[in-house]
Amino acid sequence: MSSILQLQEILETAIKNLKFPENPKQLYDPITYIINLGGKRIRPLLVLMSAELFSKNPNDAIHAAMAVEVFHNFTLVHDDIMDNAPLRRGKATVHEKWSTNTAILSGDVMMVEANKNLAKVNPVYLKDVLDTFNATAQGVCEGQQLDMEFENRDDVSIEEYINMIRLKTAVLLAGALKLGAIIAEASEKDADLIYQFGENIGIAFQLQDDILDVYADPEKFGKQVGGDIIANKKTFLLLKAFELAETENLQSLQTWTGYQEFDAKEKVEAIKQVYDVLDIQNIAKETLDNYLNKALSYMAQINATNEAKANILDLTKQLMARQY
Amino acid sequence: MSSILQLQEILETAIKNLKFPENPKQLYDPITYIINLGGKRIRPLLVLMSAELFSKNPNDAIHAAMAVEVFHNFTLVHDDIMDNAPLRRGKATVHEKWSTNTAILSGDVMMVEANKNLAKVNPVYLKDVLDTFNATAQGVCEGQQLDMEFENRDDVSIEEYINMIRLKTAVLLAGALKLGAIIAEASEKDADLIYQFGENIGIAFQLQDDILDVYADPEKFGKQVGGDIIANKKTFLLLKAFELAETENLQSLQTWTGYQEFDAKEKVEAIKQVYDVLDIQNIAKETLDNYLNKALSYMAQINATNEAKANILDLTKQLMARQY
Repeated sequence: MSSILQLQEILETAIKNLKFPENPKQLYDPITYIINLGGKRIRPLLVLMSAELFSKNPNDAIHAAMAVEVFHNFTLVHDDIMDNAPLRRGKATVHEKWSTNTAILSGDVMMVEANKNLAKVNPVYLKDVLDTFNATAQGVCEGQQLDMEFENRDDVSIEEYINMIRLKTAVLLAGALKLGAIIAEASEKDADLIYQFGENIGIAFQLQDDILDVYADPEKFGKQVGGDIIANKKTFLLLKAFELAETENLQSLQTWTGYQEFDAKEKVEAIKQVYDVLDIQNIAKETLDNYLNKALSYMAQINATNEAKANILDLTKQLMARQY
Repeated sequence: MSSILQLQEILETAIKNLKFPENPKQLYDPITYIINLGGKRIRPLLVLMSAELFSKNPNDAIHAAMAVEVFHNFTLVHDDIMDNAPLRRGKATVHEKWSTNTAILSGDVMMVEANKNLAKVNPVYLKDVLDTFNATAQGVCEGQQLDMEFENRDDVSIEEYINMIRLKTAVLLAGALKLGAIIAEASEKDADLIYQFGENIGIAFQLQDDILDVYADPEKFGKQVGGDIIANKKTFLLLKAFELAETENLQSLQTWTGYQEFDAKEKVEAIKQVYDVLDIQNIAKETLDNYLNKALSYMAQINATNEAKANILDLTKQLMARQY
């Protein structure tokens, strides 16, 4: 069994070896730029880990892993345009550094590059790999669409929110795991189980992000605590609070989310106070635990040794334990 | 041998049967909208015709044909954003009718839909089909990038221009033909020959577009004669004129292309006068004929009967004869 570190080294080498044409420079430079901004490479790591879980040499899944990583970076480039985001990992986003047109077109060609990597997998699994990848890509697009629509809606239910984060975040983790399983010739049942594991873990990750935004240790948190509150982001916490709040708590939520101008610290404190009264943090943690436990029960049903499962479970624990 | 009309009917039925999810509506409605704006369906027609040229039932190539048509429409949606175009086939473009974000994301999901259609081809050819499709898609993106860059450059050579239209226009026609050939199990040599035929025909088509913009019969031409001149579009004609012009002709080109405000009719007349002095129309026609003849010589080398080749050659003639 490879260590996580070994798998990460395989990935970094493969990423370094990704070759794009030199010209037109304006088209290809942004690809190298965004991919080299770094990131934890969780998604391609899951492809390799899943292949190894089902007794395949992780190197055999490297093309699928690269396809997933390039696709993920493509979604970042296009999402950043749509979200009007100036920064990505502390650096200028592609549309800021070059232009919106460049970001659109470089993104498009990244999608093609992802597909080129995919076409390199063993033809024996190619059809299955494509079907899983395309269904995943489609889900991610749908998730982004719903996320944008939710910004302009005041009646988003918790159920809708969970479905949105499932599509926007969880489906790609699940798809990555399933790709590894397909390439490792896992049974259809096991490939579906690892997909379900990934989907539920992905939802748990996003719920943790929602919680950390408000309750992280500011010393360890990489960004501003309360950022979601300041931006009126419809997180699980805010939606749940709106669902449960009555009278003065509801009033407070409505007032603070209605302000065009406000003192950020005051707003975070006020909304947090409502959260505390309504026990939102615990409700969110319970919901997170439900998804986590569901994920683990899917994993338990997978036909593999505990030793083989250790890597994915360790990574999951690491990611669920982060406080920063 | 099917008639062109029969093949078009197969295509229209298949296009009508393309199924997209219903929700999110904002994501999928633009796809149905753009695909149903019509168009001559040349590219998918070429897939079917090429399959039939190499003795395959055209129905066997329908998924690849749909992939090509959906991909083509995806490029229209994204190109229209980048070109800031308000109209497409006389109707509002997707980014105008919905929004830029919707046009970006619907375009992205169209690329996925194209790939989903592609994944339906017989697994026996899947790898070859993907490789040809991806190389084609990449070329189209590169062509659009070059086209955008040329707008801001004053030193575009004829050679660069031909390479740009090759990528932006010709490669997709060539790729469509090659896909049909692969699915029909044509020899590698014949698949390459039909690709070369398509590339040269595609360049000839674009040169014809450039010529028609200036010299079309205004009664039969669907759009404003001289539109390229008015917009300072770097067509073959304008680039050639700049290459050949000296003294007062060069002066006239520089003056008229330099004006921010001008009478459109006067500008068209003035530039046309320079074209006439320099014999630009004939030079363009000779260049077009060279590409056309090159295309026909590739076709002549293909191992198939003249009867089998008749459909593609008829379509080519029809398209080269259009005056509107």
